Amino acid sequence: MIYTINNLFINSNDKTKKIPTQVTVNGWVRSNRNSKKVGFLDLNDGSSINNLQVVYDPNLENNNNLTNVTTGSAVNITGNLILTPNTKQRFELKVITATVYNICANDYPIQKKEHTNEFLREHAHLRIRTNTFLSLFRIRDQVSWSIHKFFHDNQFIYLHSPLITANDAEGAGENFIVTTITNDKYEKDFFGKKASLTVSGQLNAEAYAQSLQKVYTFGPTFRAEKSNTTRHAAEFWMVEPEFTFSNLQDNIILAQKLIKTVIRDVLNNCNSELKFLEQKQETKNEQSLIEKLEKIADFNSDFKVITYTEVIELLLNAQKKGKKFEFNEIKWGIDLQSEHERYLCEEITKQPTFVINYPQTIKAFYMKLNPIDSNHPQQKTVAAMDLLAPGIGELIGGSVREDNYEQLLKNKTQFKIEGNDLRWYFDLRKYGYAPSAGFGLGLERFLMFITGINNIRDVIPFPRTPNNLLF
Amino acid sequence: MIYTINNLFINSNDKTKKIPTQVTVNGWVRSNRNSKKVGFLDLNDGSSINNLQVVYDPNLENNNNLTNVTTGSAVNITGNLILTPNTKQRFELKVITATVYNICANDYPIQKKEHTNEFLREHAHLRIRTNTFLSLFRIRDQVSWSIHKFFHDNQFIYLHSPLITANDAEGAGENFIVTTITNDKYEKDFFGKKASLTVSGQLNAEAYAQSLQKVYTFGPTFRAEKSNTTRHAAEFWMVEPEFTFSNLQDNIILAQKLIKTVIRDVLNNCNSELKFLEQKQETKNEQSLIEKLEKIADFNSDFKVITYTEVIELLLNAQKKGKKFEFNEIKWGIDLQSEHERYLCEEITKQPTFVINYPQTIKAFYMKLNPIDSNHPQQKTVAAMDLLAPGIGELIGGSVREDNYEQLLKNKTQFKIEGNDLRWYFDLRKYGYAPSAGFGLGLERFLMFITGINNIRDVIPFPRTPNNLLF
Repeated sequence: MIYTINNLFINSNDKTKKIPTQVTVNGWVRSNRNSKKVGFLDLNDGSSINNLQVVYDPNLENNNNLTNVTTGSAVNITGNLILTPNTKQRFELKVITATVYNICANDYPIQKKEHTNEFLREHAHLRIRTNTFLSLFRIRDQVSWSIHKFFHDNQFIYLHSPLITANDAEGAGENFIVTTITNDKYEKDFFGKKASLTVSGQLNAEAYAQSLQKVYTFGPTFRAEKSNTTRHAAEFWMVEPEFTFSNLQDNIILAQKLIKTVIRDVLNNCNSELKFLEQKQETKNEQSLIEKLEKIADFNSDFKVITYTEVIELLLNAQKKGKKFEFNEIKWGIDLQSEHERYLCEEITKQPTFVINYPQTIKAFYMKLNPIDSNHPQQKTVAAMDLLAPGIGELIGGSVREDNYEQLLKNKTQFKIEGNDLRWYFDLRKYGYAPSAGFGLGLERFLMFITGINNIRDVIPFPRTPNNLLF
Repeated sequence: MIYTINNLFINSNDKTKKIPTQVTVNGWVRSNRNSKKVGFLDLNDGSSINNLQVVYDPNLENNNNLTNVTTGSAVNITGNLILTPNTKQRFELKVITATVYNICANDYPIQKKEHTNEFLREHAHLRIRTNTFLSLFRIRDQVSWSIHKFFHDNQFIYLHSPLITANDAEGAGENFIVTTITNDKYEKDFFGKKASLTVSGQLNAEAYAQSLQKVYTFGPTFRAEKSNTTRHAAEFWMVEPEFTFSNLQDNIILAQKLIKTVIRDVLNNCNSELKFLEQKQETKNEQSLIEKLEKIADFNSDFKVITYTEVIELLLNAQKKGKKFEFNEIKWGIDLQSEHERYLCEEITKQPTFVINYPQTIKAFYMKLNPIDSNHPQQKTVAAMDLLAPGIGELIGGSVREDNYEQLLKNKTQFKIEGNDLRWYFDLRKYGYAPSAGFGLGLERFLMFITGINNIRDVIPFPRTPNNLLF
């Protein structure tokens, strides 16, 4: 029977389970050292970051010439499990027979020494063979699974919203065009009109929430933004729940529950990966990675909720006390900059913080206008919420949707949305539109927050950025 | 407390549960009929295809003018649950108070009468408010969830392979170009080279399976094929497992287990949806939809496995007995046509059938060459498998991958694959490539098979086909 190395480790920790004596394992050699009398392989099979120590006799024929097996090679080993209670490893595998599937060439770039993430990005097809990327992509899998499980458990229906779209209302010129021609005569193109890659599945999700009540999308979205930063990618994954008969408070509760549930799952299921990443952490903070996550996952505490207007007051106060921002013209109506957001949640609230009720002019056309505050009739706000997190800034953006047909048409003019491609979306408001709210969570941002990794290129299997389309 | 209508039905069937007397429900009005003394609403909330019968007194003020509420309107009702054991519905809701959120306009296209699927396609933003599309998209959700759960339970890691790619080796001119310019000077484009939308995540998945052992992708793929048929869409979802230390037999076992598990889950969880679709079924067969699915989901029977060479012999035999095919030149080496595939599994084997060991020339460059058969040295075959299903044809295509570096380079020449964009993929064979196999399952094909729906446009929320990019 073939065992995963992870199972062997789990069994060895569980005193109720008998450790099998003879086992077969598959895997890749992480290192091979030997003398004339004895040889040792470190074997990894991807089931965890733990290697299995394999002991072989270089002189036995059925050891299939393990002596010459190079780092990176693929092998199959049958052997006896020997308990070694006094060593760091609690057991080792003594080879009976070995099959070498494929000897790794000598120019293999992933050697035993530590490589930088920058170096490994140039070998994106091989970097998953290091413990850093094994940890990152096992966590990416866990987070994705937890997201699906969370919504499934809460009766949300998974909706595959389309990626090719005629709507570029939100993208404002930063969309990729999807075409089969090399000019702009799109009326002769595949779809008979200009097509682009979506920036959000929300508008489509709203239509389905008007019957299914609770839906979510989870898929790729795109930005043709030429930002070569550590936080931007041209292709990234987004989760977007949309649910009806709901308000801003429901939206906040759902977002908080999602974040806490997923982080709790990662803490429960990816402990060795988190420990490994914590010890490698690029930015050392007062708080360790796991401590930070434990605090956030605590279901007994709520994230802070604060209005945009209060945030402006807090920033003005900070200025009075001498705090200098790069963008220093703080006043009601400005779009909060990353430095303001981070100052707020890192220095003032010191925790994940929902900012709500933003000025209408700095938000999207579909957000619900709040009742006018008679003390500040000029300060029109919308029922929006952003979740800001220490170390990362905006993690979630959401809102209640404008359900009033006349108001939404006014917004269309005000936000200069042209053409008729969105007519179906406006029409939803004529046909029994129930109050609807939702939000978007960028998967990669969330992963960076969870893993403490600073560059978005390291949490995407094959990242796409300006002038970078390898693999 | 707010109840879903589905929960009320489940509770009423479960004698161990007490039915609450006062409940609140949200939903959309499917119909409203009333006399001076009494009114009835059929209410649907998307939690199932079952409507709740709501009874109201047209003369009570806190019934909030329900008399005038139109089909399609969104309402919130609090009332008393009254058992009605002698009627078709086991209970009804007698209104105490009602809130009308949004009155549906009179030009609402979804009226109580039955609409054709063709008509509803023109209203893709509203068709989810019919029982047909509620059933189809609740099943799509269940199937997607089951697929994730199946792979998660079997220790496969979910991999997000990139959608934007420089590799169009497989697409053969039927790829969409992804661009920010309106000419073909791609060296000045966003990525500095020609980019297109992927047709498969397999090549990327192979790299990750060479460390994680078992991975799967599940995401959108694209074809710019101008086929305006009931079975082609420009954008569709595909599931692609890839796993190492595996062979063709393992691949067949995995595919069969996946199909049976998912269909079992749908039978268990979507019974009312399947019954509804069965009764609406477009093509009436001897076998009912549910009977068909029950038979396939049976874990005690295996799908048929047959070689390509045997299939050719069977087809030649059928010809001898007078069977005429549209493509009638049956001989070893031809690509099986849809009519051949369907004849095989509908008339000969009468069950889902794996065809294995296809001629190399009609399959993809990356498939593993089988040992040469000394009786037929000219008949080079590859370790490929297609799963053919009655009524639908090819459901799954898969193979073992060529692990021999030299052979794969030969294939590169033979299949005329140009450029160096795939160098990383070839290089995998130099660096400890373990035997690897996998397959692709088209989600929409699978859904058509499960639901008995004949047009792919009806199992995609917002379908994309030539000259069709609405919504």
